[in-house]
Amino acid sequence: MSHLSASFSATLRVRLSDQPGSFAQLAKAIGDEGGSLGAIDLVRVEGHSKIRDVTVDASDADHVHRIVEAVRAIDGVEVEHVSDRTFLMHLGGKIEMASKVPVKTRDDLSMAYTPGVARISQAIADDRGAAWNLTIKQNTVAVVSDGTAVLGLGDIGPEAAMPVMEGKALLFKEFGGVDAWPICLATKDPDQIVATVQALAPGFGGINLEDISAPRCFEIERRLRESLDIPVFHDDQHGTAIVVLAALTNALQVVGKRIEDVKIVLTGVGAAGVAVSDILLNAGARRIVGCDRHGAIHLGRADLDPVKRAYAERTNPEGETGTADEVLAGADVFLGLSAPGAISAAGVARMADAAIVFAMANPTPEIAPEQLPPGKVAVAATGRSDYPNQINNVLAFPGVFRGALDVRARAITREMEVAAGRAIASVIGPDELGHEYVIPSVFNRDVTPAVASAVAEAAEQAGVARRSR
Amino acid sequence: MSHLSASFSATLRVRLSDQPGSFAQLAKAIGDEGGSLGAIDLVRVEGHSKIRDVTVDASDADHVHRIVEAVRAIDGVEVEHVSDRTFLMHLGGKIEMASKVPVKTRDDLSMAYTPGVARISQAIADDRGAAWNLTIKQNTVAVVSDGTAVLGLGDIGPEAAMPVMEGKALLFKEFGGVDAWPICLATKDPDQIVATVQALAPGFGGINLEDISAPRCFEIERRLRESLDIPVFHDDQHGTAIVVLAALTNALQVVGKRIEDVKIVLTGVGAAGVAVSDILLNAGARRIVGCDRHGAIHLGRADLDPVKRAYAERTNPEGETGTADEVLAGADVFLGLSAPGAISAAGVARMADAAIVFAMANPTPEIAPEQLPPGKVAVAATGRSDYPNQINNVLAFPGVFRGALDVRARAITREMEVAAGRAIASVIGPDELGHEYVIPSVFNRDVTPAVASAVAEAAEQAGVARRSR
Repeated sequence: MSHLSASFSATLRVRLSDQPGSFAQLAKAIGDEGGSLGAIDLVRVEGHSKIRDVTVDASDADHVHRIVEAVRAIDGVEVEHVSDRTFLMHLGGKIEMASKVPVKTRDDLSMAYTPGVARISQAIADDRGAAWNLTIKQNTVAVVSDGTAVLGLGDIGPEAAMPVMEGKALLFKEFGGVDAWPICLATKDPDQIVATVQALAPGFGGINLEDISAPRCFEIERRLRESLDIPVFHDDQHGTAIVVLAALTNALQVVGKRIEDVKIVLTGVGAAGVAVSDILLNAGARRIVGCDRHGAIHLGRADLDPVKRAYAERTNPEGETGTADEVLAGADVFLGLSAPGAISAAGVARMADAAIVFAMANPTPEIAPEQLPPGKVAVAATGRSDYPNQINNVLAFPGVFRGALDVRARAITREMEVAAGRAIASVIGPDELGHEYVIPSVFNRDVTPAVASAVAEAAEQAGVARRSR
Repeated sequence: MSHLSASFSATLRVRLSDQPGSFAQLAKAIGDEGGSLGAIDLVRVEGHSKIRDVTVDASDADHVHRIVEAVRAIDGVEVEHVSDRTFLMHLGGKIEMASKVPVKTRDDLSMAYTPGVARISQAIADDRGAAWNLTIKQNTVAVVSDGTAVLGLGDIGPEAAMPVMEGKALLFKEFGGVDAWPICLATKDPDQIVATVQALAPGFGGINLEDISAPRCFEIERRLRESLDIPVFHDDQHGTAIVVLAALTNALQVVGKRIEDVKIVLTGVGAAGVAVSDILLNAGARRIVGCDRHGAIHLGRADLDPVKRAYAERTNPEGETGTADEVLAGADVFLGLSAPGAISAAGVARMADAAIVFAMANPTPEIAPEQLPPGKVAVAATGRSDYPNQINNVLAFPGVFRGALDVRARAITREMEVAAGRAIASVIGPDELGHEYVIPSVFNRDVTPAVASAVAEAAEQAGVARRSR
């Protein structure tokens, strides 16, 4: 099964001879190769030729190549240039700095810069808290990564992480109105990462950690949360946790089960898996069994690192052992935060009736929805946009920081995270809720305001707000 | 002598009764107090009253206060609100992050973020140099300060430095089209500042150090220049040096003297003073005598720190001793980078004929132009906009980084700095040059392109350019 995607689309600049049917041949060749014809623009007419830009969606880079070759093979069609639309979009980077005040006259300059700015600086020197009013701190988040766990690509380094962090900054602005700036670090040393973020914190109202590999991410986040007086949020952990809580809240509603009662099996006890387990425990879950590649995490295992040992202490109360497929027996919920193949259809078949399966490995889920045993699973979700119920962090982080910045929060507490998850869930009304609609679309404009409002309120209640909303 | 300035301007919301002449009284009161009436807006009419916003320029905060009190004292005029225009301009900060690509549809999202962005990241992981094409690195500069030497305010801390660094970022964009982001550091430790800047460098195409106190700034800049493969530029040093070189080049032209021949006395051997001396030495100067509060720097002094000892070794070839006023005897050029009162009119009177005096202490010059002995000084310059010949770094740093980024320079060399200075000087044509016009206006739009072009060319010649322009 191949998914055509704009992320693998190309624009072909073609020269078509004037003979009748040449465009039809081109369209046929693209269709025969399985490509999808998009925009068609006439660039210019030259003598007996027409120059056109033709956009084609494909399923991967090889597919683009095959389509181009098929077009080249047509008589009377010449391919002058192929542009990769995704690469074009990233040329020169995706974000910029913009001025909010004019600097066109000497008066502007004397107020925005010297000598006028000295009065603003003096006011902040006299009262450091005035920085929240008089600088960008009030709306600015640093998106910090060391490039060690970028998407599915792993440790690709800080330069290669930049396109992702710029994309994150885009989403912060588009969905939350937050000014985020990417900071990609040329160090993997936790001490140095902590020291660097501490050093650059004064100009920011929050820190979004991103794509830092486990288990270092836990220590880095903990130390920063302890030492800084602004929110520190590792999105791979808490963003995922919030969205899973939201989807699970609604899915349980659909199947008529309570979080306190269900047995939850989770694969992948990394950054996301630990945080998802913790938010579910905070939300009332009691029976969570986490699995790594060696099977269920339980206190009897001798091979556990400190993070997993602590995890074993607060999960798996019955001390279940065995593979993920084995512990799925009788489970109501499966949460996949691992890799394709972590569980099998046979394992799912052992689950309780009206099972909930969130297979969130990206781009290939632990088990594809079409491979689920028929009649067993009531609600299925993935991380992908081409199946129903997409679990996507974009639903959480813009609203979480919007709410935190609105009240100038000193921290992001567990209560704020649970409130965020419940707010996302609440965007879908009881009459809309269904097997294929447990989580709102990433483009649902009601989500961020709902999350921001819930987070701000929870911050006030938790006593970490510097002001009310 | 009081200077009215927009940087000390207020907008008064006043309620004027309908009786004839009430506005004339208000205007008279402002004039009598020495304020300057600016924009007058009618906000609304309420019964027999008119509500107006009246903008007034004053000379300082006390002056604003006196004007407001004078207005309050008028019968039939009520002051409802006073807003400080400079503070209003800084509310919420002066810059923001902006998106260069749309994220409105699922296709946009799939190209700008996951899954499409993974291909961009992979391309950079395969070839780190591709980050120059595919990320914001190509146009982005970090404006880094530890807040220890901010304007004339001294060590006011990183939060209080932010308004200045935001202003700097504004100017980078407005004058050079450079995307700059302020990074204000919660540390004064040179080791930690160096480590922090090294860590955050991957996402930036250059580092502009700002308002870091001497002598730490020398070591920090040297270590960063040695370890990073992008330009590192301490603007307080080199920006000032470039602009002084530019103004002096033209001033010498006006008086018909050669840089190789003149005696130059300089007060203030801090960050700016050392860099100014060095660029002038690089440009051919031979006789520079630097002075600190204890007088001329010479090798016979036992109280010199390592920076000043090294300075003594490359300046003052005749080993002159004495106060600044004393060593001014026979000098052709005075460069003040110190504080008001560093020299006296009597000292200037001892200078050679057709003397050049740049008194650049801000906001109060070492010696005010009107206090100069008549007939002695051919060219006078200050850092202020209300005298002719304003020495202002805005003439240098936007073009320096524009040129460096255009060729993806690995460093900023001495040759690039000298080229920048000469480029600024060259913007004034030989027929325009005069006693009161040795340096272009900060709003002269020819300056940045000239500087950028000269810097890029010098980078190519010095072998530090990654590509040609």
